[in-house]
Amino acid sequence: MNKMIFTALINVMPLKELLDPQGKAVQGGLKNLGLTNVHDVRIGRHINLQIEADDEAGARRIAEQACQKLLANPVMEYFEVAITRQ
Amino acid sequence: MNKMIFTALINVMPLKELLDPQGKAVQGGLKNLGLTNVHDVRIGRHINLQIEADDEAGARRIAEQACQKLLANPVMEYFEVAITRQ
Repeated sequence: MNKMIFTALINVMPLKELLDPQGKAVQGGLKNLGLTNVHDVRIGRHINLQIEADDEAGARRIAEQACQKLLANPVMEYFEVAITRQ
Repeated sequence: MNKMIFTALINVMPLKELLDPQGKAVQGGLKNLGLTNVHDVRIGRHINLQIEADDEAGARRIAEQACQKLLANPVMEYFEVAITRQ
C-alpha cells in the first residue's frame, strides 16, 4: 500500500489550571499599546508536521506519539492534534 | 450596543522561506525516538485571546493589530487569525 502524506497541526498549550506568566506579560504589553479589550492571553506552541502514513488514523497515532514523547510536557501542558490530507 | 466576547486563535509561524532550526532539532529528536515518518517540522507560537468587540469583524481587527504591534515579527514570521464566538 502506498503511504500518503498528511499534515498535522498541533497546539501545545499551558494547562488551563496554571498561570501563564508569558501570556500575562503580553496582555500587559497590549494594554500599554492601547488594546484594552483583550483578556485572558495564553501562549503556547504551534507545531506543523508532515507525516507519511497509510491513513488518517495512522497519521494521528504518530502525531500523538510525537506529542507524548517529545513535544508536550504533560505536567504543565496539554496538546490538540488536527490531521489534514495534504 | 452590548459588546460580545470573541475568542481569537492566532498562529505565529516562521516564514516558509526561512530555515527553522528549532523545527530541525525537534525533527532529529523524533527520528532518534523512532518516529522516522515525520518530515518538515516547523514550530511557532499559538496564542489564545479573549476579545471584547461589537462584532466578529471588530474582533478580527483587534487581533490583527495585536499581531502587527506585538505578537509577530514581520521580518521573520507570518500570522494566521481565526475568530470564533465564545
